[in-house]
Amino acid sequence: MDLNHPIQNIRKMNPLIHNITNLVVANDVANTLLAIGASPIMALAVEEVEEVVTLADAVVLNLGTPTPQRIDSLLAAGKKANDLNVPVIFDPVGVGATHFRQTAAQQLLESVDFSVIRGNTAEIASLIGVHRQSKGVDALDSEELPVDIAERCARDLNCIVAISGVVDIVSDGHATYSIHNGDSLLGRITGSGCMLSGIIGAFLSNMASTDWLTATVKAHCAFGIAAEKAVASGVSGPGTFRAGLIDALADLTDDELTHNHRMEKINV
Amino acid sequence: MDLNHPIQNIRKMNPLIHNITNLVVANDVANTLLAIGASPIMALAVEEVEEVVTLADAVVLNLGTPTPQRIDSLLAAGKKANDLNVPVIFDPVGVGATHFRQTAAQQLLESVDFSVIRGNTAEIASLIGVHRQSKGVDALDSEELPVDIAERCARDLNCIVAISGVVDIVSDGHATYSIHNGDSLLGRITGSGCMLSGIIGAFLSNMASTDWLTATVKAHCAFGIAAEKAVASGVSGPGTFRAGLIDALADLTDDELTHNHRMEKINV
Amino acid sequence: MDLNHPIQNIRKMNPLIHNITNLVVANDVANTLLAIGASPIMALAVEEVEEVVTLADAVVLNLGTPTPQRIDSLLAAGKKANDLNVPVIFDPVGVGATHFRQTAAQQLLESVDFSVIRGNTAEIASLIGVHRQSKGVDALDSEELPVDIAERCARDLNCIVAISGVVDIVSDGHATYSIHNGDSLLGRITGSGCMLSGIIGAFLSNMASTDWLTATVKAHCAFGIAAEKAVASGVSGPGTFRAGLIDALADLTDDELTHNHRMEKINV
Repeated sequence: MDLNHPIQNIRKMNPLIHNITNLVVANDVANTLLAIGASPIMALAVEEVEEVVTLADAVVLNLGTPTPQRIDSLLAAGKKANDLNVPVIFDPVGVGATHFRQTAAQQLLESVDFSVIRGNTAEIASLIGVHRQSKGVDALDSEELPVDIAERCARDLNCIVAISGVVDIVSDGHATYSIHNGDSLLGRITGSGCMLSGIIGAFLSNMASTDWLTATVKAHCAFGIAAEKAVASGVSGPGTFRAGLIDALADLTDDELTHNHRMEKINV
Repeated sequence: MDLNHPIQNIRKMNPLIHNITNLVVANDVANTLLAIGASPIMALAVEEVEEVVTLADAVVLNLGTPTPQRIDSLLAAGKKANDLNVPVIFDPVGVGATHFRQTAAQQLLESVDFSVIRGNTAEIASLIGVHRQSKGVDALDSEELPVDIAERCARDLNCIVAISGVVDIVSDGHATYSIHNGDSLLGRITGSGCMLSGIIGAFLSNMASTDWLTATVKAHCAFGIAAEKAVASGVSGPGTFRAGLIDALADLTDDELTHNHRMEKINV
Repeated sequence: MDLNHPIQNIRKMNPLIHNITNLVVANDVANTLLAIGASPIMALAVEEVEEVVTLADAVVLNLGTPTPQRIDSLLAAGKKANDLNVPVIFDPVGVGATHFRQTAAQQLLESVDFSVIRGNTAEIASLIGVHRQSKGVDALDSEELPVDIAERCARDLNCIVAISGVVDIVSDGHATYSIHNGDSLLGRITGSGCMLSGIIGAFLSNMASTDWLTATVKAHCAFGIAAEKAVASGVSGPGTFRAGLIDALADLTDDELTHNHRMEKINV
């Protein structure tokens, strides 16, 4: 991917993004990917996910509304993507809520090398706990800041970790960025995080290099700028914002990404 | 819940509403709950629903697009909610359509004490038939009016029963209210009833008392007033109404609820 | 169905359209059907689909996000519809993508007589390949044009075949029509093809005759004109288009269908 013109490149290459996702957000994720210029495919069954991965330019694994069958599919798709060097994004939706999700996340972390993991602070913190617990190590300090959690998780799991919040944090465990684009309405619609995970998939796909840190940071800026554009276009609440966000993503340009991004490297 | 300021209270308490719902409406129900100020969680698998119930302030069980696995989850979640005194709302979507749904509804009515059951006239009438049939009692008089059906069902099942229609009916079997808020566009979008069931969950959650009759009536007024606000804001049909309804719920105030409700107690 | 006033007739008869569809588009298909004046029912489980078919005026089988359970349901519903002479529409979503979908499609083609099959060029081409391969016949010439593919598939499978694209093609294998209504934004939202398959179901239902060719052509014109109306009403991108399309379908009249259709018979 030409990271100087990522959006133009996505629209030219039209990458196929394989999403194994949940019933709440499947439609929004598909429309988000179409809007940015990628092609979504939403296969779920273990009978076909490996074959779909062979066609895909990136794979996004989402833990929302999990079932045992879905978890088998997540595992099979993730392993296959690793075999084929297709980047894999993990969105550990609600991982802290139940033992079922924690066990599933642990299996996934043990079986799949993720390129990027994206969640909110509680989810990522829970992932470290799950991971460390499975290794018999220390518990998480609940007072830890998102930046510290992102960096620890990135180092522990050797991947890019993104934490979504009022300010988004993206880290590879060594270099860490804060992204200030976005709008509070993103927190008022369901699935905005899942949509962002899909967008990250589009930004990671077709990369010549594996500079996934930069790609993930730019995906965050792009999604946040689209949210800002939607609000500026005059939405009246979360319902019209949801439609406006899709419009804004479809209309987004690399120029806007270059000029309107608000991110900075955090010096640790 | 402070029933004089229910919306303010929902926004302050941000109750977690556990929805076991169908693939058609899951997104709309989640966005509806976020708009009113609650937090949705949409866990479905029997492996995790009981644990999710332990976190929840209300549980909403929806019979749409049922599968045997989903029914197991509905039963497990309902029983667990009863054990923990968490209010449970039942939305018997399409219960009259198939024996599969009727049998599931019968199992649920036998195993779970519901706080509120909400459906359309045919669904609630079907529930009485199912219930009485399982007890070997009388058949339903198909000419019966919604008010009579609501009252009979409420007495039979010892819970609040709400029937949605041009005029909504809410009864505890003794006191009965008619709610005149709303708009005909609610009948032109899929899932408006399921969304209302979610809103009832938000209104029931965190109650100091168990005055579920009042809470259910107020939930109906709030949802209906939001529909009226959406129409007044200038929608062009069911597509824009759906977004406008979410905007209106997000913008709704207790003052509007107090001044714009149109409901009356029915003297039997 | 009175094909001179199909929309008025759909609104008068309010046909029940049974959709076995995927989690990405279920909500949009239901809202599309409500907008045109039909009633959607979205039952999925093999335990109830045959009973739902007995209530239905048309059945729409969609291959998106398939699972083994879903395929069992598609087969059972399709066979039951054949037994009852209820028209069946097949939407072979992504059939070329995996062996799992190809095998499922082959089973469906062998077990069910479809009234209409609708897909994009690749899907319909893949169906011919699947069908012929299963019969040990020739491979598909990848250079073949949509018109030729539609006609061959219609003759091979003895049904109406519709191919969606910049220009839509509808053929019964002998007479073939091209439909020029529509807008490029239909390709920018997920599920527009699935929505059209639902609309075809509404147009086929309650027909006095089985002139499914005319009904399918008119369904395409109606959907395309609605898209044009949505764009003319001033949408800002795919997000607002999606809502505008539903508004336009709800507002569509037979007069508009008569005066604004752009289709022609292709002389082979």
